[in-house]
Amino acid sequence: MSRLPLDAELAAVFESVRRRQGGEVATYIPALAKADPNWFGVSLMTVDGGSYCLGDSEEPFTIQSVSKPFAFGLALDEHGVDATLRRVGVEPSGDPFNAIELDLKTHRPFNPMVNTGAIVTTSLVKGQTQPERTESILRGLSRFAGRRLEIDEDVFKSECETGDRNFAIGYLLRNFGMLDADVGDVVQTYFRQCSVLVTVRDLAVMGATLANRGINPLTGKRALREEHVARVLSVMSTCGMYDYAGEWAFRVGLPAKSGVSGAVVAVLPGEFGLAVFSPALDEHGNSVRGIAFAEELSARFSIHLMARPPTARRVVRRTYRGDAVRSKCGRTAAENTLLRERGRATHVIEVEGDLGFGATEALSRAVHAELDGTTQRLVIDLRRCGMVEPAVAKLLRAIADQVEGAGAQLVLAGLPQSLWGRVPAYEFVDVESALEWCENQVLHDAGIIDETAVPLAEVEILAGLGATTIERIEAAAKRVVLAPGEPAFVEGEPAEDVYLVLAGRVDVLLSHDGAAERVSSLGPGSVFGEIGALAGGLRSGTCIATATTECLVVGWEELRAICAQDPSVLDRFYTNLAMTLADRLRMADEERRALW
Amino acid sequence: MSRLPLDAELAAVFESVRRRQGGEVATYIPALAKADPNWFGVSLMTVDGGSYCLGDSEEPFTIQSVSKPFAFGLALDEHGVDATLRRVGVEPSGDPFNAIELDLKTHRPFNPMVNTGAIVTTSLVKGQTQPERTESILRGLSRFAGRRLEIDEDVFKSECETGDRNFAIGYLLRNFGMLDADVGDVVQTYFRQCSVLVTVRDLAVMGATLANRGINPLTGKRALREEHVARVLSVMSTCGMYDYAGEWAFRVGLPAKSGVSGAVVAVLPGEFGLAVFSPALDEHGNSVRGIAFAEELSARFSIHLMARPPTARRVVRRTYRGDAVRSKCGRTAAENTLLRERGRATHVIEVEGDLGFGATEALSRAVHAELDGTTQRLVIDLRRCGMVEPAVAKLLRAIADQVEGAGAQLVLAGLPQSLWGRVPAYEFVDVESALEWCENQVLHDAGIIDETAVPLAEVEILAGLGATTIERIEAAAKRVVLAPGEPAFVEGEPAEDVYLVLAGRVDVLLSHDGAAERVSSLGPGSVFGEIGALAGGLRSGTCIATATTECLVVGWEELRAICAQDPSVLDRFYTNLAMTLADRLRMADEERRALW
Repeated sequence: MSRLPLDAELAAVFESVRRRQGGEVATYIPALAKADPNWFGVSLMTVDGGSYCLGDSEEPFTIQSVSKPFAFGLALDEHGVDATLRRVGVEPSGDPFNAIELDLKTHRPFNPMVNTGAIVTTSLVKGQTQPERTESILRGLSRFAGRRLEIDEDVFKSECETGDRNFAIGYLLRNFGMLDADVGDVVQTYFRQCSVLVTVRDLAVMGATLANRGINPLTGKRALREEHVARVLSVMSTCGMYDYAGEWAFRVGLPAKSGVSGAVVAVLPGEFGLAVFSPALDEHGNSVRGIAFAEELSARFSIHLMARPPTARRVVRRTYRGDAVRSKCGRTAAENTLLRERGRATHVIEVEGDLGFGATEALSRAVHAELDGTTQRLVIDLRRCGMVEPAVAKLLRAIADQVEGAGAQLVLAGLPQSLWGRVPAYEFVDVESALEWCENQVLHDAGIIDETAVPLAEVEILAGLGATTIERIEAAAKRVVLAPGEPAFVEGEPAEDVYLVLAGRVDVLLSHDGAAERVSSLGPGSVFGEIGALAGGLRSGTCIATATTECLVVGWEELRAICAQDPSVLDRFYTNLAMTLADRLRMADEERRALW
Repeated sequence: MSRLPLDAELAAVFESVRRRQGGEVATYIPALAKADPNWFGVSLMTVDGGSYCLGDSEEPFTIQSVSKPFAFGLALDEHGVDATLRRVGVEPSGDPFNAIELDLKTHRPFNPMVNTGAIVTTSLVKGQTQPERTESILRGLSRFAGRRLEIDEDVFKSECETGDRNFAIGYLLRNFGMLDADVGDVVQTYFRQCSVLVTVRDLAVMGATLANRGINPLTGKRALREEHVARVLSVMSTCGMYDYAGEWAFRVGLPAKSGVSGAVVAVLPGEFGLAVFSPALDEHGNSVRGIAFAEELSARFSIHLMARPPTARRVVRRTYRGDAVRSKCGRTAAENTLLRERGRATHVIEVEGDLGFGATEALSRAVHAELDGTTQRLVIDLRRCGMVEPAVAKLLRAIADQVEGAGAQLVLAGLPQSLWGRVPAYEFVDVESALEWCENQVLHDAGIIDETAVPLAEVEILAGLGATTIERIEAAAKRVVLAPGEPAFVEGEPAEDVYLVLAGRVDVLLSHDGAAERVSSLGPGSVFGEIGALAGGLRSGTCIATATTECLVVGWEELRAICAQDPSVLDRFYTNLAMTLADRLRMADEERRALW
């Protein structure tokens, strides 16, 4: 595959960091000392599965302390927040990761990222025996990685042989009642957890799973309950980088976890997981190149979590009123006049950008400013929103209360499906149908929705043609009654006849990307089929009755011939036709202007 | 002012938290012991100045430790990162705020949020003497608050009388070379800093200033350099809440700072500052109700910084090609045919939502997928983006390199003004003008842009009328040559004449919100002014030549009279006119379909 733009950017950072020497490979576990200090791999995976790999991205290594936040997640899933926090705190300790110390008051380890807390965490994973817990951990980490992971038995043995300090921690924990299980069992399970083999690509997937609310972007399967994801990330952000956590937050600004084998995984919530692997460690026990890579990437792309630019400013794209922008629903002249007069009481607020807390709050102020005492209907058009956070439903409900309190009706257009039914409002898939509904409300309130058929002489293109001509047309035409849902004609049929609507309503549909889209809706006094008849050939769209609809159908050539019997009638007829088209064009231009 | 929707939500949290009893008012500074434990005020201010206040929001109190992050910002502004960090670290200490301890290796205080670090910070603020430093601090804090703040001299005296521990810290710092100034001077300045009087509303403004990249949302003035804002927030996030910082990050997830007078200020970067004031403190020294209010608000609105929902998924709203969607630029039949054939090599990617790092990366993959070897022009339409982070300019430049590498031209439509000129691409204010430019490229490449005048018989509405009629029209018409920029007619003039374009080009403009917007652009063979003439009355738009333009101008009534001399000519003329209008309408419908 050819390279993506980000490949080049990552490669530039990679090359500049590769030159960094310094640091030492960890030796306190003999098996780790075999690592090549020159290994250097980087992988980044986005929440939608975009994948970037550089350098030694397929080199396997043991996960070590990078397992700790994921195991903490498994403990939270198994026991919930309260029970887990009774056994392990979430405070940074200010001391080295292998310090043998507990909180003086509670006897809990300070947090799950130091060894004391990590051993407690391992004991809280589902299972009663060492094999059961080990399998829970393997399965859990594998769900994060999106493939079945395995244990490096050599490293495991090496850890057991040199793990006295961790056994000491285990007995201390049990002494203070923080550990229920057998100490040897739990500490050995912990060593197996540390000995799980991964690549830097696996770690990027694991990070991306945290970035993606707990769902693995490769498998689409959940690895951690959504409610616990922010909790795991929080502990990473305050305690994940040993006693460099504060400076990491200061310089990089992403929740992260590092391990003694030289790996660092960092997460930009909502966006990506990043993993770096390079075994040479600094004095804090963090990968020298891991730190350098993340610092340079963060600076280059301003991905520091605390550097979010202000978002609330451009929420409202524009506001307009129902007299200026109209639905595609054809109306009689009387209806049009009424809608021009009373449409101003329909207010539309068009929203753009992502709708988070701040943006929704800004929207609520725009709604407040819009409600002027004469507002009867307030339409909020959400179709331009990239994303609507589920949590804003509460604020949208409060907005609904406010609109109701002001004596107006709230209409939501283009609300994301996930929020349908969660806000007390009239909901429409798009602003077009919302506007049509509002217009119908205006007409209904004024009592001018008239269901009796109009006389033929009032059909727009026949205006002023004289009684004789009208009689001739009526005699030549065929009366058709369409049931709701019945088509007058469908796309691709020969276009010969013109339809004059006397009663009811017809939708004009054009097919688009396999779906039919409504271009306009026509009521009594309208004409349809005239464009196809004019151009000849085949119908370019479909017309379907949406109510019981009465039409007169007349052949185009016949209609023209009748009018041509008197040059002044023909002139009038064509002028009517041209004006009908010009009116529609003018409306289309107005709408285009309003939409852009 | 009547209530906003968020008022009701905040009031519900406020009432539920007000019932919380427990905690003790701080007594170690005697002046603080006078506080009423029932005081309870809340204020929230958004980055665009939306303001919410509940309870005792006007009650003044001394700022105490809440001053620390702001003073740290002043030190960073004065000395930069490296010099500041030589004197004070950014690591959580795990120990109480008043611990007399320094980092064993560097002799620095652990961080600027504990007293040791805060006293160093105060010594780094601009000024050589106690009055100078005090004035720097007062001025700096006042810029954050948006009003001139003052010092409570009683509290200051009380702090001096009981401040032995802080004097001890001062001498310890000086002993280790962390303090250059006179110890008494600096510690007294620190006490004055702690004794600055604020209200909870002031603190919300100060927090909102950090949320707003350092610009005070009320005054619009900068209080802190943008580059230091994320740094201050980072230290708040790891060290701001005493030895509850980890649990606060776990449960609330916002950078914050609390103080002994019972205040907490929390920041959602990019969105708001929140402040709570209630003097009863818990065992960590944090306001009981401050903690409770923030926890409940965070849970209710999912504003935890680590709980950002994935954003990258819906970046690309749709893609289309230049054969399906066309500019409003009128073309000859031959040009239209060519554009239908070759327009497919123009690819348009329409982007929506906010463009941060992840979204831009996803866009880069969409660009990659779009470049299929036949792409000649790639248009990225950014008009639906709520916000484009400046840092994505780098990725946009990498995208430009990629498009160039694929042998295509990159065209950006609707790029925010802040990024103009920062990406090597053809830039247009909107997709309409971008599409017109692309079409001109196609026509230019094919060599069919023809500047010779068309014969009158080829004007669209005169097609097939016969030589005699054409001659009669030519005799009745007036030949007009318009210079570029010269109007044919302007809005509001009487509409009598029809314009037949023989050479050049004319823009049709409609005025809208006081600005003229282009509805279409017409070239040789087109007609304009016919809609106004048809309807009678006044011109509804303005037509201006954009090149040297040659037209024949003829009165509408005269033109009609000439055609009416032969019924079959009249029939043909009107059919032409109706088809011209129907064509434009069809294009408008297609475009509307593409735009929604």
